[in-house]
Amino acid sequence: MDDLSRLCIHTATTKPWSIEIAVEQFARAGVPGITVWRDAIANRDPKRVGAMIRDAGLSTVSLCRGGFFPALDVDGRKRAIADNLRAIDEAEAIGAPLIVLVCGADPGQPLERSRDQIVEGIRTVAARAREAGVRLAIEPLHPMYADAKSAVNTMQSANDLCDRINEPNVGVAVDVYHIWWDPNAMAEISRCAAAGRLYAFHVCDWRTPTRDFLLDRGLMGDGCIDIPGFRRAVEQGGFDGFIEVEVFSTQYWSMDQSVYLERIIDAYKTHV
Amino acid sequence: MDDLSRLCIHTATTKPWSIEIAVEQFARAGVPGITVWRDAIANRDPKRVGAMIRDAGLSTVSLCRGGFFPALDVDGRKRAIADNLRAIDEAEAIGAPLIVLVCGADPGQPLERSRDQIVEGIRTVAARAREAGVRLAIEPLHPMYADAKSAVNTMQSANDLCDRINEPNVGVAVDVYHIWWDPNAMAEISRCAAAGRLYAFHVCDWRTPTRDFLLDRGLMGDGCIDIPGFRRAVEQGGFDGFIEVEVFSTQYWSMDQSVYLERIIDAYKTHV
Repeated sequence: MDDLSRLCIHTATTKPWSIEIAVEQFARAGVPGITVWRDAIANRDPKRVGAMIRDAGLSTVSLCRGGFFPALDVDGRKRAIADNLRAIDEAEAIGAPLIVLVCGADPGQPLERSRDQIVEGIRTVAARAREAGVRLAIEPLHPMYADAKSAVNTMQSANDLCDRINEPNVGVAVDVYHIWWDPNAMAEISRCAAAGRLYAFHVCDWRTPTRDFLLDRGLMGDGCIDIPGFRRAVEQGGFDGFIEVEVFSTQYWSMDQSVYLERIIDAYKTHV
Repeated sequence: MDDLSRLCIHTATTKPWSIEIAVEQFARAGVPGITVWRDAIANRDPKRVGAMIRDAGLSTVSLCRGGFFPALDVDGRKRAIADNLRAIDEAEAIGAPLIVLVCGADPGQPLERSRDQIVEGIRTVAARAREAGVRLAIEPLHPMYADAKSAVNTMQSANDLCDRINEPNVGVAVDVYHIWWDPNAMAEISRCAAAGRLYAFHVCDWRTPTRDFLLDRGLMGDGCIDIPGFRRAVEQGGFDGFIEVEVFSTQYWSMDQSVYLERIIDAYKTHV
């Protein structure tokens, strides 16, 4: 597959590059989509960043990330709401149609309570997001992050939360890294798609061994995930959006990022 | 709860101790159960080890571990069968009524194929285990081990495999470390217990942050797992067997193991 028309790369994937360099390099390489991490636009005017992305001929696929709703104390939950409202403002300004939510968890309380707080938090900000033309995608995170990063750890759980929230602009971001191991994943992808809630599709790979909980993701083809199988599943559900390469890797970040970008494109062509 | 009558400790928990010292120390401290890891009896006569355990007034709760059935090549699968038959011989000799199975996975093949090979492997050895008076417990492992250690990563998956295998001496070992994050865990514990397949209950805790994929488990109370909640769930299902403390921790292994044993007992009394 030499068609790059659906390829999107996250700014966090080529983290050593500033967003200005990333946009220039992606455009030169024919990569049409970019997902913008909020740290990449710190101290910048998001409207100007959005214009720069559009001027380069790229599409902003999503803003990463909102979420982190749960907290033991009510002030913590209020701060989370305020931060998510800021994220919606930024998405609107930059022109991102979607915010990915890493929902959060507080190890000091039961997971059920964290899930309730996630439902409440998303409900609180959903209307403002809708007004801004922004959709919100719950990203189920791998169960190894259930203690402090996300109490939503399977497609089933993400779908269940969407049912509870029941807002027209709240759906799911499917990331193969988090769900590849789950025997229920394919059925829950179908359920998600049938509900019109499959908003995003992220790819990378699971290395054996994985040497770090956060920063040792593989490029597609480096590991054991059946990425084409998941691509078929989301496309059978009708998903035809961007395929987003999201790789956090100290190893790849230490490479020359121009050489790395070529490897990303090759991996996309060969293993997605 | 000051009653230690259901406390069992794994030899791997106090790994710096030889099994001879562990048995002596457990007996002195009033710990009535021991689960024996196979590396702890390497180069020993398992019959003698069994007699030593009984002479000290202890019960051998289980032998850890069999499994690792999947392999890309048929020779690998044959070697796994042979090794599991040896484990059954050892369990019989030592007098262990149960073998815990870490089922295995091969990152070079789809998880479904690994699961099929697990079903086939367990079916192949189940009759010999039954003849030896040994039960086999599938232990679902945390999804972070799905690539190379176990393709069985939830209680639901373990129950489903037991249904497929359908042998009277094949059930499940519930370890809170692996399943605590799962919204379906409680329902699937009930399903497992109702089928008469809940064979073992392991406890430890999940630390935040967890610094190593294998060797940073917490002692009960160190982390975020609702251990009493899981204890209630297994007991509501009728489980009244030993509660097994299984902690792999470079940090705790570096302590004076006699002091550590006191901490294990305190943690058991306070947080289980």
